[in-house]
Amino acid sequence: MSAAELPRDWNPPTLDDVRAAAQRIEGRVHKTPVMSCADINSMTGSELIFKCENLQRIGAFKARGAMNAVWSLDEEEAARGVATHSSGNHGAALALAARSRDMASWVVVPDNAAAVKRESVRREGAAVVDCAPGMNNREAALARVVEETGAIVVHPYDDDRVIAGQGTAALELLNSCQDLSMILAPVGGGGLISGTAIAAKGLNPSIKVIACEPAAADDARRSFEQGQRLSMDAPDTIADGLRASLGRRNFRIICDLVDDVVTVSETGIMAATRLVWERMRIVIEPSAAVPVAALLEEQVPGSSGVRIGVILTGGNVDLDALRWS
Amino acid sequence: MSAAELPRDWNPPTLDDVRAAAQRIEGRVHKTPVMSCADINSMTGSELIFKCENLQRIGAFKARGAMNAVWSLDEEEAARGVATHSSGNHGAALALAARSRDMASWVVVPDNAAAVKRESVRREGAAVVDCAPGMNNREAALARVVEETGAIVVHPYDDDRVIAGQGTAALELLNSCQDLSMILAPVGGGGLISGTAIAAKGLNPSIKVIACEPAAADDARRSFEQGQRLSMDAPDTIADGLRASLGRRNFRIICDLVDDVVTVSETGIMAATRLVWERMRIVIEPSAAVPVAALLEEQVPGSSGVRIGVILTGGNVDLDALRWS
Repeated sequence: MSAAELPRDWNPPTLDDVRAAAQRIEGRVHKTPVMSCADINSMTGSELIFKCENLQRIGAFKARGAMNAVWSLDEEEAARGVATHSSGNHGAALALAARSRDMASWVVVPDNAAAVKRESVRREGAAVVDCAPGMNNREAALARVVEETGAIVVHPYDDDRVIAGQGTAALELLNSCQDLSMILAPVGGGGLISGTAIAAKGLNPSIKVIACEPAAADDARRSFEQGQRLSMDAPDTIADGLRASLGRRNFRIICDLVDDVVTVSETGIMAATRLVWERMRIVIEPSAAVPVAALLEEQVPGSSGVRIGVILTGGNVDLDALRWS
Repeated sequence: MSAAELPRDWNPPTLDDVRAAAQRIEGRVHKTPVMSCADINSMTGSELIFKCENLQRIGAFKARGAMNAVWSLDEEEAARGVATHSSGNHGAALALAARSRDMASWVVVPDNAAAVKRESVRREGAAVVDCAPGMNNREAALARVVEETGAIVVHPYDDDRVIAGQGTAALELLNSCQDLSMILAPVGGGGLISGTAIAAKGLNPSIKVIACEPAAADDARRSFEQGQRLSMDAPDTIADGLRASLGRRNFRIICDLVDDVVTVSETGIMAATRLVWERMRIVIEPSAAVPVAALLEEQVPGSSGVRIGVILTGGNVDLDALRWS
């Protein structure tokens, strides 16, 4: 998981890569349902089509990218197993993907990770490797795992296979619903939004792709505006899936294909989370509510009266820790 | 809403009535999705097919019965509007149904009803009539509404049209999934379980139909065992949708068609509620978790290794009031 700059000859994944990913993961992940909600439509003044990745395997879109990465390995690589560090959904996703190919997996989990997420990684069958919190400790622990096991590292977002895999959610959404004017997804490290932009712009160059971010973790917005990749150390947001800073590949794709990056308040995120639980009766994590919050807070120009796809990214919540007020 | 005995010549609704209800309400309520969950299957040792009525309009199966009742009225009756008393989902369901036919509706709501349910009745367009808590006060307030308005009363469960309407959930489930050995639903007043039994036994006499009830509100179990309809005053259970006592029609149908009534603990209900939220990422109310709790607590003989339909009845929860521990 290196921070080195990208090779000069790197080319981003294309719509064809997303389509190949969709074929590769077919039957191994869910084709998640789309839902709508009349109440939320009338509150936002838009017609929203929700792609329910909270109902995906392991409860998050991350299953797509990890599955594509694991099934892209050749036999020699697969025999070595896969490894990553993760305090969230990517660890469980990689464990699930490895298990689907009868491979070993190692996931480095920092001591301060939520108990529910650690348990989920273990339940999916990974060897959990504990480490002290902090990116340096995580990288060091992962390097030791790789040295000892020879496992292939699968980065949670700065990886072409992962980006193409995450793009399959938008591909499915747009194939099932062809008249969307706009598509919204949250941005953290940028795996989902970059795959989404590749799929959406590839299918329809005129569709608007909007990245949505907590104002308290606005590295993507600032990076997008200033044209250089900025990072942020431990941003304080309830949207725990969006605390990572943009990856190198992800930043490049966002600059090329994303139309705008908008930000929302923490109270807006919690209000939108609650609204979806109460009116749609589905569990989403706060990170997933960020695009809904952006619409409710009127942060998305041109959203009024049009049909908009919204990717609800995940539903893994620590119910004991959640506080509504 | 009279407690008088049933007329001697009363005949319960039949499978044909459920089928007619399904036609009548088609396009006016959702065909709700079915879901499964590998984790819960392995915990219960059964293959469970969940019928997600929490994703129904107004967030509960009650939309079905109310819609069938309202669209069964002739023009003269419809012009008078409809009325009921309700502290829960039936009020919102009746308001929704009345609105779908451009009819007036009045719902008597006791002062101690949850704010979220009162608000939902109002949002669906009913005139909310406040009253003091207690069945006598509710009946008296409803009688005044009827006297003043001439509205037709639609009882929440002791009504043939409502029973046939509620049966459409099982009809859909069994039509989409034909190899179920057993079907489980909660029992409160008995509208859902009686309609479910009519549909299920009508389609397949060998299927087992099991009613599930909080042990703290076990009037249905005791009534079923003793062969006489017993009532219970204000039972203390978290499953607020199941506090009503069996209706007259419902009791007769249950005695004829239901195979068993099983009961579960309050801690089992909360554990099952939480399990569904966490593993299926959908919001269900505690009443809906009662059949899941019955399976987890091994209260359902013959459930091991077989395919079982479970009706998840509703998802209207007061998030501020919910406590997990």
